[in-house]
Amino acid sequence: MRESPFCWVPLPRLSPEIAKREGEYKHEIIIVGAGPAGLMLKFLLSHYGLNDESVLCIDDKPKRLDRGHADGLQPRTMEVLKSLGLADRILHTGRHLWEFAFWEHTREKSIKRSFIAPTMTEGARYKQVTTINQGLVEREFEDGLLHYGGKGVQRNSKLVDVQFDGDEDPEFPITAQVDVNGTTRRYRTKFLVAADGAHSTVRRCMGVHMRGESRDDVWGVIDLVADTDFPDIQRRCFIQSEAGSIFVVPREQIYSGTYLTRLYVELKHPTKNGLCRDRYLHNMRRDDVSKDIIMRRVVEAFQPYYFRPKGDGAIHWWSSYQIGQRMLDRFIIEDSLGMGRIFFVGDACHTHSPKAGQGMNVSMMDSYNLSWKLAYSVLGLTPQATSLPNSNPILETYHTERFSVAQELIHFDRKYSTMFSRERDITSRCNSHRNVALSKFIETHRDSNEFTSGCGVEYPESVLTMKLFHRPHEDPSLGVGALKAGKRLPDLRLKRYADGSHCNLQDDLPSNGCFRVLCFTSTDLLDSTGKSAQALCHLSSTTLPRFPSSTIEQLVIYPAPLDAFEWEHIPHGIRYWSEMRFYNGYEVNDAYAIYGLDPAKGALAIVRPDGYIGVVGMLTDLDRIDHYLGGCIATIR
Amino acid sequence: MRESPFCWVPLPRLSPEIAKREGEYKHEIIIVGAGPAGLMLKFLLSHYGLNDESVLCIDDKPKRLDRGHADGLQPRTMEVLKSLGLADRILHTGRHLWEFAFWEHTREKSIKRSFIAPTMTEGARYKQVTTINQGLVEREFEDGLLHYGGKGVQRNSKLVDVQFDGDEDPEFPITAQVDVNGTTRRYRTKFLVAADGAHSTVRRCMGVHMRGESRDDVWGVIDLVADTDFPDIQRRCFIQSEAGSIFVVPREQIYSGTYLTRLYVELKHPTKNGLCRDRYLHNMRRDDVSKDIIMRRVVEAFQPYYFRPKGDGAIHWWSSYQIGQRMLDRFIIEDSLGMGRIFFVGDACHTHSPKAGQGMNVSMMDSYNLSWKLAYSVLGLTPQATSLPNSNPILETYHTERFSVAQELIHFDRKYSTMFSRERDITSRCNSHRNVALSKFIETHRDSNEFTSGCGVEYPESVLTMKLFHRPHEDPSLGVGALKAGKRLPDLRLKRYADGSHCNLQDDLPSNGCFRVLCFTSTDLLDSTGKSAQALCHLSSTTLPRFPSSTIEQLVIYPAPLDAFEWEHIPHGIRYWSEMRFYNGYEVNDAYAIYGLDPAKGALAIVRPDGYIGVVGMLTDLDRIDHYLGGCIATIR
Ligand SMILES: Cc1cc2nc3c(=O)[nH]c(=O)nc-3n(C[C@H](O)[C@H](O)[C@H](O)COP(=O)(O)OP(=O)(O)OC[C@H]3O[C@@H](n4cnc5c(N)ncnc54)[C@H](O)[C@@H]3O)c2cc1C
Ligand SMILES: Cc1cc2nc3c(=O)[nH]c(=O)nc-3n(C[C@H](O)[C@H](O)[C@H](O)COP(=O)(O)OP(=O)(O)OC[C@H]3O[C@@H](n4cnc5c(N)ncnc54)[C@H](O)[C@@H]3O)c2cc1C
Repeated sequence: MRESPFCWVPLPRLSPEIAKREGEYKHEIIIVGAGPAGLMLKFLLSHYGLNDESVLCIDDKPKRLDRGHADGLQPRTMEVLKSLGLADRILHTGRHLWEFAFWEHTREKSIKRSFIAPTMTEGARYKQVTTINQGLVEREFEDGLLHYGGKGVQRNSKLVDVQFDGDEDPEFPITAQVDVNGTTRRYRTKFLVAADGAHSTVRRCMGVHMRGESRDDVWGVIDLVADTDFPDIQRRCFIQSEAGSIFVVPREQIYSGTYLTRLYVELKHPTKNGLCRDRYLHNMRRDDVSKDIIMRRVVEAFQPYYFRPKGDGAIHWWSSYQIGQRMLDRFIIEDSLGMGRIFFVGDACHTHSPKAGQGMNVSMMDSYNLSWKLAYSVLGLTPQATSLPNSNPILETYHTERFSVAQELIHFDRKYSTMFSRERDITSRCNSHRNVALSKFIETHRDSNEFTSGCGVEYPESVLTMKLFHRPHEDPSLGVGALKAGKRLPDLRLKRYADGSHCNLQDDLPSNGCFRVLCFTSTDLLDSTGKSAQALCHLSSTTLPRFPSSTIEQLVIYPAPLDAFEWEHIPHGIRYWSEMRFYNGYEVNDAYAIYGLDPAKGALAIVRPDGYIGVVGMLTDLDRIDHYLGGCIATIR
Repeated sequence: MRESPFCWVPLPRLSPEIAKREGEYKHEIIIVGAGPAGLMLKFLLSHYGLNDESVLCIDDKPKRLDRGHADGLQPRTMEVLKSLGLADRILHTGRHLWEFAFWEHTREKSIKRSFIAPTMTEGARYKQVTTINQGLVEREFEDGLLHYGGKGVQRNSKLVDVQFDGDEDPEFPITAQVDVNGTTRRYRTKFLVAADGAHSTVRRCMGVHMRGESRDDVWGVIDLVADTDFPDIQRRCFIQSEAGSIFVVPREQIYSGTYLTRLYVELKHPTKNGLCRDRYLHNMRRDDVSKDIIMRRVVEAFQPYYFRPKGDGAIHWWSSYQIGQRMLDRFIIEDSLGMGRIFFVGDACHTHSPKAGQGMNVSMMDSYNLSWKLAYSVLGLTPQATSLPNSNPILETYHTERFSVAQELIHFDRKYSTMFSRERDITSRCNSHRNVALSKFIETHRDSNEFTSGCGVEYPESVLTMKLFHRPHEDPSLGVGALKAGKRLPDLRLKRYADGSHCNLQDDLPSNGCFRVLCFTSTDLLDSTGKSAQALCHLSSTTLPRFPSSTIEQLVIYPAPLDAFEWEHIPHGIRYWSEMRFYNGYEVNDAYAIYGLDPAKGALAIVRPDGYIGVVGMLTDLDRIDHYLGGCIATIR
């Protein structure tokens, strides 16, 4: 434990430890599947202090993924991985996509570059998409898990059946039948998380179905080391050729020193007579796809440039898929008493086309959202755990929050996929509207970046997200800047008082399960009767001590230089609660300007354990802050 | 291997693989000691492709360090760790020291802050010192080693004796007796590296001795979680109190969420009569030091502030030491034929006081310098390996280069230690020259940073460092900027042509054992008869193909925007040899201005495998470049 690279403070447990009889297979949480969603969840729960006794994560595969599958990490995902200490090696190894090139076909069998554009997410800490093999991301989680002293994932363990059966043990009302290395075991659990991917067994056992549509288009996807004179092979490209569309995704450098390339390849059968430009109108069947068919289409599409795999073993992985957007109606299943018990995350509750690079991201973010809510519930840290056992408003927000994101994803993906279909392109060409199509593409791409980057996600109103918390007539400016309830806290560089270091604010909000009170003081901090001092005094003496230790932290930001005073001149509670979390709000970045706050008035904000802003209020909104927190965390006095 | 987070291309082997008889303990290189120096060497040799058969690293300890010892990583060390893929977790976990506070005693039993100053190394990629437990640095190496498929360090293995014995096996003329888990084994090896620390067994067996002086001052050192109202406990401080001097070194956050503090504590006995200010003139004996004595002195020195360990178990580690500066006369020992066979690195060849934070750094940099020279020798990649078996000018540069650094270190440390001695302070006070002493301190501190940061190191003239390579009358400006033979290549941010990404130049020179030709083209690159095109043509067709693959790489920098041309408009050799190493020299940073080059003339430079610049020349200096490289690397044509 000592050796953990992460500074690690587990959440406290107010509930009793799980008690098992000899030989009993019983857990508080079972996670089915160790893909990106399952691993993220297992890692976070370990990080919060739930050990292997409490949480079991199973996967039917004997070892983790080695090649292929998803490969894009979005800016918000990188912020979250950073908050877990898992970003740095991925950033070091991965590829960062700075530019996008668009290629169109000019005359038959030839393509031509239309433009190169920069791609970045303004306001994000990591502005470019990072591409890297999904297996390397999974490895970061598995390596990281080892630091918590457990065995991590239990492999070769296939979930066969799952049912509610609360009669025998009402506290552990779920039974799961798991085939472990060929032997069947019966497990009991309080909560079960279905992270078992697109062909979810849990979904089948529970009799729930995804809804949506599947289009007929078949695409191939291939990872290879390319040998080509195509000039933009190291850029992210969209190529609209006669032979079909191709997406080029540049990838990380691999052991041989060369760089990998991923291609998404549209596959249609040539028509017999090869008339005019409509030679490839017939959809291919997925079963007909082979590596050779994909490569043949690639070679055609890249003309007049040559394209071939670079030497033996250059093709690392290939697959094919049919575009479709489908999702579950509800991401939570309740037991007979109405308590949410089974949770769906990742591909198990929403699937879509892979080209927008959302696969790993939305799945991991589902788990990121769910993890602390589950941990709080199991540890007895939710207010309801003691009062109303069969209702848990905190857990319920998992559905409301992530379902709305999944809907947006599906909606976006439908739009995005249509845009890339060949029919549409032909139409626009026939009508000589190519430029319209082009500028439409650019526009959609730019607009969608807010969503695809993950930074634009905004959670709806709930017990955790009070957008109407603040009374607008009291301070109309509040909540119109980047500090907005429902959105993630954007990063800033600030100078810390205690050691003068310039730090990223997000680094001082690691994902340790804590809520944070951010006190943006007004300029009158040194006035011991001023509203900043009063607010800090209330927080120190009333708010913070009400909650279990390690569930809430205070950060203080001051809108003026820090060299005019000593610790003794400012409220005692700053050093006591926030020695290393007290900053000058404008020496590096101007926090007040960026967050849209008035330095003369100051503000208070609560950031949830997942980095989303719960409420934004005035320095005088202390009772309301206390009320909000009391709705999120169990009180101890 | 696939899974290595480092892109990994081993160096080629021109020499035969090592042949062993059944049961024979025989290696090409044996490293004695797995402290920072030994681990750095073992890691690098693995990275170059030398496996456990070839290289054995032994250590007598059963496991790696857990607490204490050195804790400061200097800017240059971080650059090197980054080039090995090992920096990021350390940067994430470690503490970055941005400020320095100086405290003086005012009247008896009281201290007062004189000033706070920023500390940083201009021109370095990582401007602040990073502090972190030595054990966590060692762990990065050990974790990293696992990716190369071997077992890493052989522990519980104590070197007992080492001798030359070339009669039996002249190619493996060293025998080493090692106690492995209680049984004695006799190993043979070609080369042996003494990384066995201050009390080196190899030194004793070889009958060589360190020379230098030891002062009488005894200091204590203690790592703890502090509970104090001292305002600067989170800053690096020098405190000159009545009770002796104290250095405060803020450290990383630990598992409990609190931050560690290291204190270096001057220890003197109080005089009996306690006259005036000279109460503590008598030196303490090291044997008399205990944790309690250190803490008592700390409590006194911090007055009027309180200081105590924060709760049980707050004291993590403590030790005591006597200041001394000593080093070996020669860092290499030759066999009877005159061939350098035994190499000393780290504390085994130089020791000094710990306060300047050089301990781990200079030791690791010794190994960094030696590693590729040894690897080239063993792999048959040095030119001499085939022609003159008993002389190896490349290996000999290890002594000339690192001995001069050690001398500088000793010299610096003497100056630095004197500056902090109490006597001196008393003198200055008696003469009312305190301000002189103070400004002298600041000045020395600033000047010494060039050295302590590791970025100022300049290697002397040798076969690897040709300062006189260039004829100054031909281009007097060359070599007067930051691009200077003998110094490390400073980092820059540049825009890459192939993918438009902004990259750190140093990241495209990872420590993979390659030499690099840097071609700073002149503005006439597009003119196919211009001198840039001619130079690139010569490099492509004559220079690069002369050497074994993976021993030399080409980087090309162009002093103008990149959007005015396509690959086909520039010399073919750029894409062939440097597809992902071709940059715009001024869109992000202005490489030509920073490196002191004239864009109208261009330049050529060779960077050695350790990031130091070997030569700087004009674009027309091609024959001389070829000659230099021929003196460093075996040719294959
Ligand atoms: C073949 C393939 C190709 C893909 N290609 C792309 C692509 O090109 N681009 C892209 O963005 N995305 C791609 N994806 C999707 C991407 O990998 C997913 O979006 C992402 O992995 C979702 O993560 P997840 O954890 O929800 O599910 P998954 O990664 O699917 O993980 C589910 C895990 O559950 C395990 N499991 C399933 N059933 C059981 C059971 N009954 N018992 C125990 N364990 C079980 C599985 O072995 C698996 O490890 C691809 C997926 C697949 C399967
Ligand atoms: C007790 C102590 C306290 C220190 N405190 C500080 C400090 O406060 N600040 C600071 O900057 N530096 C400090 N140092 C120095 C710092 O740790 C060294 O400068 C640094 O570790 C040098 O690295 P090295 O690899 O050369 O030697 P070491 O780290 O000493 O490594 C030598 C290794 O060789 C092994 N070894 C020795 N003999 C044999 C043998 N016969 N056979 C096999 N293995 C052998 C040892 O077990 C050890 O692991 C301290 C060192 C010690 C020992």
